[in-house]
Amino acid sequence: FNIVLLPGDGIGPEVVGQAVRVLTAAAQAEGANLNFNEQLIGGCSIDKFGTALTDETLAACQAADAVLLGAVGGPKWDDPQAKVRPEQGLLGLRKGMAVFANLRPVRVHPDLISASPLKPERLAGVDMIVVRELTGGLYFGQPKGREVVDGIERAVDTLVYNEEEIRRVVRMAFKLAEQRRKKVTSVDKANVLESSRLWRKVTAEVAAEFPEIELENMLVDTAAMRLVASPANLDVLVTENMFGDILTDEASVLTGSMGMLPSASLGADGAGLFEPIHGSAPDIAGKGIANPLGTILSTALLLRYSLKLPKAAARIEQAVDQAISDGLRTVDLGGKLTSQQMTDEVIARLG
Amino acid sequence: FNIVLLPGDGIGPEVVGQAVRVLTAAAQAEGANLNFNEQLIGGCSIDKFGTALTDETLAACQAADAVLLGAVGGPKWDDPQAKVRPEQGLLGLRKGMAVFANLRPVRVHPDLISASPLKPERLAGVDMIVVRELTGGLYFGQPKGREVVDGIERAVDTLVYNEEEIRRVVRMAFKLAEQRRKKVTSVDKANVLESSRLWRKVTAEVAAEFPEIELENMLVDTAAMRLVASPANLDVLVTENMFGDILTDEASVLTGSMGMLPSASLGADGAGLFEPIHGSAPDIAGKGIANPLGTILSTALLLRYSLKLPKAAARIEQAVDQAISDGLRTVDLGGKLTSQQMTDEVIARLG
Ligand SMILES: CC(C)[C@H](C(=O)O)[C@@H](O)C(=O)O
Ligand SMILES: CC(C)[C@H](C(=O)O)[C@@H](O)C(=O)O
Repeated sequence: FNIVLLPGDGIGPEVVGQAVRVLTAAAQAEGANLNFNEQLIGGCSIDKFGTALTDETLAACQAADAVLLGAVGGPKWDDPQAKVRPEQGLLGLRKGMAVFANLRPVRVHPDLISASPLKPERLAGVDMIVVRELTGGLYFGQPKGREVVDGIERAVDTLVYNEEEIRRVVRMAFKLAEQRRKKVTSVDKANVLESSRLWRKVTAEVAAEFPEIELENMLVDTAAMRLVASPANLDVLVTENMFGDILTDEASVLTGSMGMLPSASLGADGAGLFEPIHGSAPDIAGKGIANPLGTILSTALLLRYSLKLPKAAARIEQAVDQAISDGLRTVDLGGKLTSQQMTDEVIARLG
Repeated sequence: FNIVLLPGDGIGPEVVGQAVRVLTAAAQAEGANLNFNEQLIGGCSIDKFGTALTDETLAACQAADAVLLGAVGGPKWDDPQAKVRPEQGLLGLRKGMAVFANLRPVRVHPDLISASPLKPERLAGVDMIVVRELTGGLYFGQPKGREVVDGIERAVDTLVYNEEEIRRVVRMAFKLAEQRRKKVTSVDKANVLESSRLWRKVTAEVAAEFPEIELENMLVDTAAMRLVASPANLDVLVTENMFGDILTDEASVLTGSMGMLPSASLGADGAGLFEPIHGSAPDIAGKGIANPLGTILSTALLLRYSLKLPKAAARIEQAVDQAISDGLRTVDLGGKLTSQQMTDEVIARLG
């Protein structure tokens, strides 16, 4: 298998470096060999090549079996009005790899419930997966730009979806639901947006293909409340790109242990882009203390979804669970372990 | 003063009926006389006139000194694909009255902290006001519609803002900050949206007019996290229409007592539309047990912002605070009082 590594900026190289050790060991334990090819993306790519994503990096990612990314961005490249920005690398990669579905499992280990901002009784039983559409909507819709009319500047972004873009991501959510609690919550703003009314129509059509799965439609403002008020009632949640950006972050902060959460961005052909949900954390970059578990758990998703090695994936997930149960903690969770020490502990538990 | 009452649907008529008693008493205590003119809006207007907002109702609201609304909608009119829907009344009213800024104070009485989904230490000290742009963005941008191209249906919504629309609402946020902790958090998605980059530029210009106020720019996904993780650090938050729809609801659920939260929608000339943030609650409609405090506190905002009677407003707010301190509760907060009994208790404390 050919894996492209995109360590990126800030703590990205540290957590990717550690995670690769776990990924290699778990794959080997199942008899699989991995080739790694490292490329630049984000701020480091801007510094070297003047662009956040070179054609060469994109081509390598398109040809690979899977891509593991750390994080992009940092104060050095932080001006949103700048022409060249790190996150363009990420957006270009998503579009270029056609990874239209971003999956974020949100679970919390029982021993970590105390880190949550929520009362324990609200968090107990939380086990959801948020499926965010990733290559459409306001992020990529045209026209998009600014103009001055009669001396007044105006700016336009366009939210556009066609039924195929909706169908493929909603279908993925329903397929995930088959393996879980058999319920999909589709989030939209159908009382205001035309795109949401189309979303709701297509979602109803997909639901008819899955008679054993229950479909619940929820308005995005209601979803923002339910995530905080009763997160344990949510199982598979599916929504468009911008709503997903907001709701996935809201969902992940509920756990209080964002450094542990992985994500997978999947396309039609199994190719995928895997990354922790945390950012580049410039404040702790270079110190070797970042929590590597979000990236390590992302390699488990990589093994499961792109390499179809579910046993290797389960080895990693069980090893991480065990390490937490054994009381091992990095600094962000009140412990003292370095990234490397935590990773050693996970490897020791791979079985 | 001429006040239009729009009780609307569900529990709307019950809570408006109670709140008018408090409003009348508080205004009288300050020597002001109010005339009330009641009109239909939402589902009840659809049933009678076939439209959620008649020209007559809109004209009455435009001519009034202030409008007090209950809630619109309910299962009877719930199909988002229907041509005529209750929320069109609300959207038409906002646009027709040109109330471009929706203000939602989010505070929690110390005695009610236990109702919150958050741990008490996270909620302590929460006292923010969210200012949501209300007449622009995805809600009203053109083009907006659906079409079939080569057999594939697509839908478009348009997010458009001009600098004047941004300036007036951001300025209102800065003016509010002058009376508070002197900090404005402006929420956008400037790393992705052109409209947000214009928003950020105009916000910086407004900030230059208020040198004593600190401006913090925050991405909407970060804001969705901070609201849950550290809400006490937020004071005045300002954002565009759709982000505001999501974040105001997220912010209000933190308190655990949504039935108590008021809102004000203000235009340039002092005219305003006041309503509780809760919905029409069809499950308890007609039972006389809805919490009237959200609507009662909305009348306090009406007195302060539209009638310029801050003393009458303070009377109401203090009476409500006192009633809560005295342990009085409606059913939603674990008590037994009816809407009418709770209102009687507030009136008894008006001073
Ligand atoms: C960096 C940014 C463009 C990106 C997004 O908005 O998609 C990030 O917030 C994310 O969620 O992966
Ligand atoms: C009913 C709906 C159109 C409305 C909105 O989205 O603005 C509501 O959610 C609100 O926040 O007042």
